[in-house]
Amino acid sequence: MNHKMVFGTVGKIVLVEALMLLIPCFISFYYKEVCAWSFLLAVLIAVVLGTVLMAVCRTNNDVIYAKEGFTTVTLSWILLSLIGALPFTISGEIPHYIDAVFETVSGFTTTGASILTDVEAMSKGLLFWRSLTHWIGGMGVLVFVMAILPNVSKRSIHIMRAEVPGPVVGKLVPKIRDTAKILYLIYIAMTVIEVVLLYAGGMPFFDSLVHSFGTAGTGGFGIKADSIGSYNSYLQWVITIFMLLFGVNFNIYYLLLIRKFKSVVKSTEMWVYFGIVAVAIATIAFNIYPLYGDVSDTIRHSAFQVSSIITTTGYATQDFNLWPSFSKAILFCLMLVGACAGSTGGGFKVSRLVILVKKIYSEIKRLVHPRSVKVVTFEGKRLEEQTITGVCVYLAVYIICFVLLFLALSIDRFDFETNFSAVAACFNNIGPGFAAVGPAANYAEYSIFSKIILSIAMLLGRLEIFPLIIFAMPATWSKAK
Amino acid sequence: MNHKMVFGTVGKIVLVEALMLLIPCFISFYYKEVCAWSFLLAVLIAVVLGTVLMAVCRTNNDVIYAKEGFTTVTLSWILLSLIGALPFTISGEIPHYIDAVFETVSGFTTTGASILTDVEAMSKGLLFWRSLTHWIGGMGVLVFVMAILPNVSKRSIHIMRAEVPGPVVGKLVPKIRDTAKILYLIYIAMTVIEVVLLYAGGMPFFDSLVHSFGTAGTGGFGIKADSIGSYNSYLQWVITIFMLLFGVNFNIYYLLLIRKFKSVVKSTEMWVYFGIVAVAIATIAFNIYPLYGDVSDTIRHSAFQVSSIITTTGYATQDFNLWPSFSKAILFCLMLVGACAGSTGGGFKVSRLVILVKKIYSEIKRLVHPRSVKVVTFEGKRLEEQTITGVCVYLAVYIICFVLLFLALSIDRFDFETNFSAVAACFNNIGPGFAAVGPAANYAEYSIFSKIILSIAMLLGRLEIFPLIIFAMPATWSKAK
Repeated sequence: MNHKMVFGTVGKIVLVEALMLLIPCFISFYYKEVCAWSFLLAVLIAVVLGTVLMAVCRTNNDVIYAKEGFTTVTLSWILLSLIGALPFTISGEIPHYIDAVFETVSGFTTTGASILTDVEAMSKGLLFWRSLTHWIGGMGVLVFVMAILPNVSKRSIHIMRAEVPGPVVGKLVPKIRDTAKILYLIYIAMTVIEVVLLYAGGMPFFDSLVHSFGTAGTGGFGIKADSIGSYNSYLQWVITIFMLLFGVNFNIYYLLLIRKFKSVVKSTEMWVYFGIVAVAIATIAFNIYPLYGDVSDTIRHSAFQVSSIITTTGYATQDFNLWPSFSKAILFCLMLVGACAGSTGGGFKVSRLVILVKKIYSEIKRLVHPRSVKVVTFEGKRLEEQTITGVCVYLAVYIICFVLLFLALSIDRFDFETNFSAVAACFNNIGPGFAAVGPAANYAEYSIFSKIILSIAMLLGRLEIFPLIIFAMPATWSKAK
Repeated sequence: MNHKMVFGTVGKIVLVEALMLLIPCFISFYYKEVCAWSFLLAVLIAVVLGTVLMAVCRTNNDVIYAKEGFTTVTLSWILLSLIGALPFTISGEIPHYIDAVFETVSGFTTTGASILTDVEAMSKGLLFWRSLTHWIGGMGVLVFVMAILPNVSKRSIHIMRAEVPGPVVGKLVPKIRDTAKILYLIYIAMTVIEVVLLYAGGMPFFDSLVHSFGTAGTGGFGIKADSIGSYNSYLQWVITIFMLLFGVNFNIYYLLLIRKFKSVVKSTEMWVYFGIVAVAIATIAFNIYPLYGDVSDTIRHSAFQVSSIITTTGYATQDFNLWPSFSKAILFCLMLVGACAGSTGGGFKVSRLVILVKKIYSEIKRLVHPRSVKVVTFEGKRLEEQTITGVCVYLAVYIICFVLLFLALSIDRFDFETNFSAVAACFNNIGPGFAAVGPAANYAEYSIFSKIILSIAMLLGRLEIFPLIIFAMPATWSKAK
C-alpha cells in the first residue's frame, strides 16, 4: 500500500478539522465562555499533527487504488473523532475522554446518541461543535475536502465510493470534484433555507443553526432535555419536512436543478421511501390516537417520529418508548430500513431493500420456471449481477456485524431490549433506542467497553462496514502491492 | 398446474396420517383412556378425506414439476396439521381448535412450542401423539411416503428439494426412493439406540420413547412441567449427545456407513458446527458458573442448553431465561444459526452461514483487487454462482419474513423481548424463547391472531419459506402451465 499517500491525505484532513474547530472557538469567545481556550488548544494540536503528517508523508505518487481509498477514509474518521473529542475533555465538560470520543463519533457519524445526562448545562461553544460535527459528517468529510482542494487525484472516485453510502455511487458530472461541489452546494442551500424557516418561526438564531445542522446531517443532537418537544408545532413540522428531504437521494435534487423532472418522477427509490413513510405515519397515528385524543397532535407526533427514525436523525417530540408495542415495532423496522442511498441518512438504505425484494421475486420465478431468465432492473436500468451480489453480501455482513455487536454489548448488565435497540440505534446511526436508551434516556450508564463497542458500531454503520474491515486486515498494511 | 396430481398425492399422505393416528389410538386403548375414541374419529375423518381426494383426483399424469412439488408439500403439511389437531379438540383436552392446531403445527414442524399450561395432566395417548408428530415431521412426511410407496414418480426430487432443509439437496444414491430409504433407516436406528440408552439409564419406557421422538425430530415436546430438569444427569447427558447427533447432516452417517471416513473428516460444515457448540458451551459455562458453583453441574447445564438451542430442539434442564444477558445473547445467536443442512434441525443452517462468510471474504478481496477472480468452494467443491445467490436470497427473504412476523406479533400486548424471541423461537423451530415465552412459560397467553401468525412462522421455518410463498401466489393456481 501507498502509506505516504494515505497518511499525507489524512494530514490534510486534520488541518481542515483545525479550521472547523475555529468556528466554535469564535462562538465561545463571543459568549465569553472558558471553553474557548480548550478549542484553541485542540486547534493547536490538530495543526501540529496535520503539518507533521503532511511533511513526513510528502509524495508525488498520488494514485489512489481501492485499498488506499478505504484506508484513508477509515483513518480520517477515526482521527477526526479522536481530535474532535479533545475540547470536551480539555474543558472538563465531559471529563472522561472515552465518553468524549463516543459523543464525537456519534456526532461525525450523524448518529446523535449521547452520554450527556444534562445537555442544557453545556456551554454554547461545545453544543455548537457537537452539532457542527453532524453537519460535517452528513455529507462526508473527504467529499468536502475533494470539493474545496484544487489538486484532487483523478482516482478519488475510490474515496467517494468508500464514504458516500448506497449500493451504487454515481458521478453526476464527469469530474468527481465538480460532483462533490454540486452536492455540497445543494446541501448548503437546503441548510440555509431551514435556518431561515426556523428563525422566522420564532426559534432563537443559535437554536435554528444547531437544529438545522442536526437535521441536515440526519444527526439528532439537540440542546434541550426534551429534544424538539418544547418547540411549537410549526417548528416541529418544519423539522419533520426537512428531515424527510435530507433523507432523499441528493441526485434527485440535482435532477430537479437541471430540470429533468421526468427522471425524478420515475425514481423507484423515492416513491418507495415516501410510500413507507406514509404507511408508517398512518398506522402509528391509528395506534397512538387513544394516547393523545387529538387528530392534529397525533398526526404531528407520528409524522415527526417516523421521519426522525427512517431518516436516522433521532430527534423526538415525544418519548416513543412509552408508545404501544406495535408502534415501537414499526419504528424498529424503520430503524433497519433507513433512508435513501446518496442521502445523509444511515441504515440499510431503501434502494438496497428494493433491489433485494426484486431479486427475491426473480428467484421465486426461477424456482418455479428453472429455465426462465429474469433480469432485475432498478431505476430503469438493468442491474449487473455484481451489483445485486454486492447488495446481498452487504446484507449478510450487516446481519453478522449486528449479531456480533449485540453479543459484545450483552456482556454489560442491561436487558435484551436495551442492548438490541442500542445496537440498532448506533449501527444505523439513529441515536435513541428503546428502554434504557430511549429518547428520554441516554448512553451514560454503559461501561467503557460498551461505549467503545458502540463507537465502532457507529463508524461501521456510517462507512458501511467494508472500509473498516479492510482497514483492520493485516494484509492491507503489508508493503507489497 | 396439475391440480389432480397435487390433490391426489395429498390424499395419499392423509391416508398415511390415518395409519399413524392408529398408534396413539392403540396406546390410549391400552391405558384405557377415553381419548382413544377421539383418535378413532380422527382416523375415520382422515380415511374418508384421503379416499375421496384420491378417488376424485385419479390421474395417470404423475409428472411433478417444481411448482407441483412446492404446492404438494405445503398443502400436505397444512392438512396434516389440521387433521392431527382433531384428537386434541374432540377429546376436550385442548378445547379451542386453533390452540390444537398451534400445538400440532408445532409438533410436525419440530418446533416444540406449546400452549399447554399443565402438560402433566394430559392423557398418555395425546402426549404420545404430540411427540410422534415430532418424529414424523423431523425427517419429512413426504420423504417418508416416498420411502415406503412403490410407484414413486421419477421427478420426486422436486418434493425432496421442497421438504429437506439446506442450500443444496443431494441424492446419496442414484434413485431418489433409495436415498429416502437410507435416510429413514439411519433415522430409525439412531432413535432405537437412544430409546435403549435412556431406558437402560432408568427412564420409564413411555418416557424414553417420547423423549427419543422429541430428540430425533429436534422437536422438544416434553411430558413434565420442567422439561428434562427432573431426570438424572446420565439421562441429561444422553439427550445432550443425541440432540447434537441429530443436528448433524445425515449424509455424514451415510458416509460413515459406507466407510468413507476421509470425506467425513473433511466436512467443513460438521467442524464449524461442533466448533460453534464447543465455544458456546465454554463461554456460557464461564458466564453462569457463579449461579451453580459446581463445575460438573455448570458444564452439564451449559452443554444441554447449547445443544438444545443450536439443534433447535428446545428441551431444557434449567430456566435459561434467568441466566445473565450475555448467556442469553449467545443462545439467541445460536437460535438464528440453527443446525446443519440435511439434519432434522431448523434455523438458518450452518452450511449457509459458512457459504455466506466465504462469499463475504471473496467480496472483500474483490473490493481490494477489483480484477481478481475468487472462486468460492464448499466441502471441496467449487460452488456455482447460482447456489451462492440462492443462499444470499434466502438470507434476504429470511430477514424480511422475520421482520414482518415480528411486526404482526407486536399487535399483541407483549413486550419487545417476548415478541422478538417468540418469532425467533417459532420461525427457527426451536420452541421456548425468552421472557414471557421462556422455558418455564408457554404460548397460551397469546391471542388467537398471534397463534395463527406463529403457526405460519413455524411452517415457514420448517419448509424454508419459498414453498409457502409459491403456494400462496395466485399465479401458481392458474390453469395454464
